[in-house]
Amino acid sequence: MTYQAPLPDMTFVLEDLCGLAELAHLPGLADATPETVAAVLEEAARFASTVISPLNPVGDRLGLGFADGRVTTPQGWVDAYRALVDMGWNCPTARPEHGGMGLPAVVNACIQEMFSGANTAFQLCSMLTQGAVEAISHYASDELRRTYLQHLVSGHWTGTMNLTEPQAGSDLAAIRSRAVPEEQHYRIFGQKIFITYGDHDMAENIVHLVLARLPEAPAGVKGISLFLVPKVLVNPDGTLGATNDVRCVSIEHKLGIHGSPTCTLAFGDNGGAVGYLVGAPHQGLQYMFAMMNSARLGVGLQGVGIAELAGQKAAAFAAQRKQGSQAGVAGSVAIMAHPDVRRMLGLIKARTMAARILAYRAAAAQDIAHHSPDPSAAAAAQRRVDLLIPVVKGWATEMGNVSASLGVQVHGGMGFIEETGAAQILRDARITTIYEGTTGIQALDLIGRKLIRDQGQAMAELLADMKTTQERLASTGDTATDWPAMHGMIGEAIAMLGAATEWVLANHQRDALLPQASAHAMLELSGICTGAWAMADAALAAALRISSGDNSAHLGAKLRLAQFYRTQVFPQASALLAQLADGAETILALTADDLGAVT
Amino acid sequence: MTYQAPLPDMTFVLEDLCGLAELAHLPGLADATPETVAAVLEEAARFASTVISPLNPVGDRLGLGFADGRVTTPQGWVDAYRALVDMGWNCPTARPEHGGMGLPAVVNACIQEMFSGANTAFQLCSMLTQGAVEAISHYASDELRRTYLQHLVSGHWTGTMNLTEPQAGSDLAAIRSRAVPEEQHYRIFGQKIFITYGDHDMAENIVHLVLARLPEAPAGVKGISLFLVPKVLVNPDGTLGATNDVRCVSIEHKLGIHGSPTCTLAFGDNGGAVGYLVGAPHQGLQYMFAMMNSARLGVGLQGVGIAELAGQKAAAFAAQRKQGSQAGVAGSVAIMAHPDVRRMLGLIKARTMAARILAYRAAAAQDIAHHSPDPSAAAAAQRRVDLLIPVVKGWATEMGNVSASLGVQVHGGMGFIEETGAAQILRDARITTIYEGTTGIQALDLIGRKLIRDQGQAMAELLADMKTTQERLASTGDTATDWPAMHGMIGEAIAMLGAATEWVLANHQRDALLPQASAHAMLELSGICTGAWAMADAALAAALRISSGDNSAHLGAKLRLAQFYRTQVFPQASALLAQLADGAETILALTADDLGAVT
Repeated sequence: MTYQAPLPDMTFVLEDLCGLAELAHLPGLADATPETVAAVLEEAARFASTVISPLNPVGDRLGLGFADGRVTTPQGWVDAYRALVDMGWNCPTARPEHGGMGLPAVVNACIQEMFSGANTAFQLCSMLTQGAVEAISHYASDELRRTYLQHLVSGHWTGTMNLTEPQAGSDLAAIRSRAVPEEQHYRIFGQKIFITYGDHDMAENIVHLVLARLPEAPAGVKGISLFLVPKVLVNPDGTLGATNDVRCVSIEHKLGIHGSPTCTLAFGDNGGAVGYLVGAPHQGLQYMFAMMNSARLGVGLQGVGIAELAGQKAAAFAAQRKQGSQAGVAGSVAIMAHPDVRRMLGLIKARTMAARILAYRAAAAQDIAHHSPDPSAAAAAQRRVDLLIPVVKGWATEMGNVSASLGVQVHGGMGFIEETGAAQILRDARITTIYEGTTGIQALDLIGRKLIRDQGQAMAELLADMKTTQERLASTGDTATDWPAMHGMIGEAIAMLGAATEWVLANHQRDALLPQASAHAMLELSGICTGAWAMADAALAAALRISSGDNSAHLGAKLRLAQFYRTQVFPQASALLAQLADGAETILALTADDLGAVT
Repeated sequence: MTYQAPLPDMTFVLEDLCGLAELAHLPGLADATPETVAAVLEEAARFASTVISPLNPVGDRLGLGFADGRVTTPQGWVDAYRALVDMGWNCPTARPEHGGMGLPAVVNACIQEMFSGANTAFQLCSMLTQGAVEAISHYASDELRRTYLQHLVSGHWTGTMNLTEPQAGSDLAAIRSRAVPEEQHYRIFGQKIFITYGDHDMAENIVHLVLARLPEAPAGVKGISLFLVPKVLVNPDGTLGATNDVRCVSIEHKLGIHGSPTCTLAFGDNGGAVGYLVGAPHQGLQYMFAMMNSARLGVGLQGVGIAELAGQKAAAFAAQRKQGSQAGVAGSVAIMAHPDVRRMLGLIKARTMAARILAYRAAAAQDIAHHSPDPSAAAAAQRRVDLLIPVVKGWATEMGNVSASLGVQVHGGMGFIEETGAAQILRDARITTIYEGTTGIQALDLIGRKLIRDQGQAMAELLADMKTTQERLASTGDTATDWPAMHGMIGEAIAMLGAATEWVLANHQRDALLPQASAHAMLELSGICTGAWAMADAALAAALRISSGDNSAHLGAKLRLAQFYRTQVFPQASALLAQLADGAETILALTADDLGAVT
C-alpha cells in the first residue's frame, strides 16, 4: 500500500479553516491563489505517493551503509532526492530571490505532512535543511547568506542542527563544544551526537549549524554561540574546496526511521573544523529557539502524517479482511463492520483531523506573523504561534504514536509481522515524541514560556476565538447535526482551559514544581480542548458547504467525526483537568525509592 | 540491566491481598505454606535474573535460525531451557502424580510474571506447554494422559496450541483443517499459522493440540474437534518412533519476541499426520475455551511482567542520568527529580501494582475454584475467574504497552537506540494485546459471556466485595494516608461499574451492536475501577502492617502509589463511563467511507 495524500481534506482545512484566500492578500504571498495552491498540492501528492512512499519500506528494510566515515543511503534514495531537488520541493517557503517558491507556511505544512506520511525518514532531510535556511536567512551575515543560502534552498546542499552532546540532551546548558577564533573564522572542537543526516550521499555538501562555546564565554545557556560548519569548505569563487575537519564516527542502530542517518560527528580531531559565527556571540540558544518553532511544527506535522498513514493502512486492511459474522449479513463480514474496529479507525481519523487543523492553523499564524503589514496583527499571530507550537508538537506526536499502535491492533496478528508494514509505522512514529524536545519539554515550554510568562494573555486570546465558535454554534439554524451537543462541548472546553490556566498561574506562585507536575496534563488538556474547537469549526464549515449544495463525501464524514470526537475523545478533558488540579502533590510525594527498581 | 523480581511486593500481594495462608488449607495445596512459597519464589527469582534475563537481549539480537524445516533457538537458549526443566520450573502447578510441584495457581502467577519480565520470548514456551498439560489432563483419555502428560509436565516435551489458519484468526468458525478417521487414530490435514514454538531445538518432542473438523462435522464452531498430534510418534513402549507428517514450512519475521519461533505448520502433506482425538467429537472449541482462561491470565501476567521490566529499566536510567537543574540543588540533577519523569515512572509503577493484584486475585480464585471442597464457594470463585480474566488480559496488556512506551520516553533519545534495550521491551510488549484474543475480543467476551449471559450476577458479587473495602475505608481510625479521598474513589468506582453494567444490559435489549461499540470502554472502566479496589485494599493492608511495626520501605510506597493512582489514573474512569454511555451511537454512525483511506 502506498500513501495517498488526503487532498480534499487538506484543501478544506486550508480554505475553510485557515483562511487561505485571505493569506494570499498578504504582501509576499500573492502567488498563493487557490488555483496555484491546488496545482502545487496535486503535484506534491503525486510525488509523495509515486516517488517517496514506495521507498519507505525499502529504507526500513535495507537501512544505511557506513564505511570509512561515509554514510550511504538506501537503494533509490539518491535518485528520489535528486528528483525532489529538481522539482523544487526542498524548501517551498523560501523566498524567490533565494530560489524558493515563496509558498505560505500553511501550504508547506500540507506538503511536509504528505512527505512525512509517505516516508518520514526521507522527509527529515529537507525538514532539517529548511531549519538551516531559516536560521541563516534570519541571522547570518550577508556573506554567509550569499555563499550558502541558494544551495540549501535548492537542496544541492543539505543542512543539519548540531545541538546534542553526550552530557547535553534536553539540557543545552551543559554543552562543551568549543570555538577558537582564527583570522576570519573559528576553529570548532567537540563531539555531537544524534545528528540527523549528519552524513549521507544525497548532496555534494552538508552545512552543519553547531552550538559551541567561545573562549571565556559565560557558563550555561548564555554562553552558547551558533556556528556554520560546512562539510566541504567553499572557495571564494563559490566552488567546493578542501574537506573540513568534521567526521562521522558512527551511526546509530535505531528502533525506526532506518533510512535516516543518525550520526555522531567529531569536530576538530585534526586541528579544528573551520566554522563561521552566525549572528552575535552568545546568542546561539536564542537563534536555535527561533528555528525551533518551525522544527517543532515540522515534527508535529510528522505526527499528523504518520497517523494519516496508519489510518489509511488500517482502513484498507479492515475493508478487505473478513472475519466473523453479523446479524442480518450472509457470510463473513469485513472487520470494518465490527463496532470496535470502527471505534479504533474513528479514533485515528478524528484525532488526525483535529491535529491537522491545529497544526495548519499554527502555520497560518506563522504566515500572518511573518507577512502582515499590521504590526499588532503580526504580534498577535506570533503569540498564537508560540502558544500552539508546544501543543501541536506534543499532542500530535503522542496522537501519532497511539494511532500507529491502533493501526497495528486493527491488523491483529498480521500487525506484528514486519512484512505487513504496520509495525514499521509504529517504530518510525516512536521518535516523534522525543526529538526536537520531548513531550515533557513541550509541556514545560507550554506552562513556562507560553502561560506563566505572559500571565495567560495568549491563552485568553485563544479562548476568545473559541467563544466566537461557540456563538456560531448557538446561532446556527442548520439541522445537519447535533449542534446543541457541540455547543456544550465548546462551552466546557473553554471553561476547562480557562480553569486549568488559572490553576497553573496561581500554583506557580505557591511552588514552581506544582505546575511542572501538572504540565503534561495541561498539554494534553490543551490538545483535546483546542482539538474540540477545531472539530466544531470543521463541522460548521462542512455544514455550510453542504447547505450550499456541495455533496462531497468528506463533508458528511466531518460532521460524524466531530460528533465521534465529542463522545469518544473529549470526555478525557475532564479527567485531565482533575489530574491537573488534584494530582500534582501526589506526583511530588513519590520518592525515588517508591519508583526504584526493586521495592 | 537484568530483571530483578520485586519479591517483597509479590509476597505482600500473595499474603495480604490473596489470602495465601487460607489457600494452603485447601485440599491439594497443603504444601503451599508461606515458608515453602517464599523459598520457591526466591529460587525462581534467582533463576529469572541470572539465567533467563541475560538471554533476553541475546534472543532479540540473534533471533532464530531456520533451515530444512527445523528451527534453531538463539545461542544459550537450549542450555537455559535444560536448566529450567532440571529445576522443575516448566509446569509448577501440575499435580505431583504427574511430576509437578502442585503449587497453587497464584504462586505460579508470580513465577510466570517473573519469567516473562525476565524474558517473554523464552517464557512463552512453558506457558504454552502449561496450557497443553491443562487440556490433556482435563479432557484426554487415560491412555493419552499416560503417554504424554509426564513428559509435558517435566518439559522434556513441549506443547503448542494450533488454532489459527489464514482465514480463521479471531473467527474460529472458519477453521478448515480436516481429520479423517483411520484405525485407532485420525489423519490430520491442513495448514496452521502463528504457531508459537511450533518447532524448535530445545526438546526432543513437540505435542501439537490442533483444532480440526471431522468428516460431516456441523459447520461453524460446533463442528470443531481437538486433536493431539505429536511431532514425533510415540511407540507403545513410550520410546520415540517415526517422525509424524507435520512440517514447519516457515517462521515469521516479527516486530518483537524475536527469540520465540512463530511457525507455519503444514499437517498431512505426505499422507496425513497421525492425530488422536481429545475428548468427544465437536467439543474442541469448548475445550480450548477452558484452556483459554489460563492462557489469557498468562498473557495478562506477561503484561504485568513487561511493565515491571520497563519500570525497572526506566527507573535505573532516571536515577543515573543527569540533566537540568532544580532550585536548591547544586549542579545538575538526576532526571528522576523532574516532576514529569516522576509522573511517568509513577504511572508505570502504580498501574503495574494494580494489575498485579488483579491478576493474582484471578489466579487465587482459580485455586479456590479448583480445590475448594465447598461447591458453592468453588462456583462463586469460578464466576470471579471468568469475570476477571478478560479484564486482566485486556487491561494489563494495554497497560504493559503504555508502560513500555513510557519507559522509552523516560530514556529520551537513548530510548530510540536499540542497544539501550528499552525499545525491545516496547517491541516485545506489542504482541500481548493481540495473541490469545485481541483486546477487542476480550471486551466482547466481557460484555457477552461475562455480563449479559449471567445478567450481571458475577459483577454484582464483585461490587459487593468492593463495598466491603469501602466499609473498611470508612471505619479505619488510622491516619497513615488520606482515607476519606480513598473512600470517595471506591464509592465512585462501585457506582460507575454498576451504572456501566446496567447500561450494557439495558442497551443489549435495544440493539446488540450498542454494547459492542462500548465494549472497549467497559473493559477499560472495569480495569480502572477494579484497579482502584486493588489499590485501596493494598493501602489498607500496608497501613495495617505499618501500624503493627513493620517499616519496610515498600509499605509507605504503597500508600503513596495508591494516592497517585487515585489522582492520576482513576479520573479516567468517569471519562470512560461517558464514552460508554453517550458514545456508542456515534461509533456506529461512522460509515466505511468516513473511515476510508482517502476522503
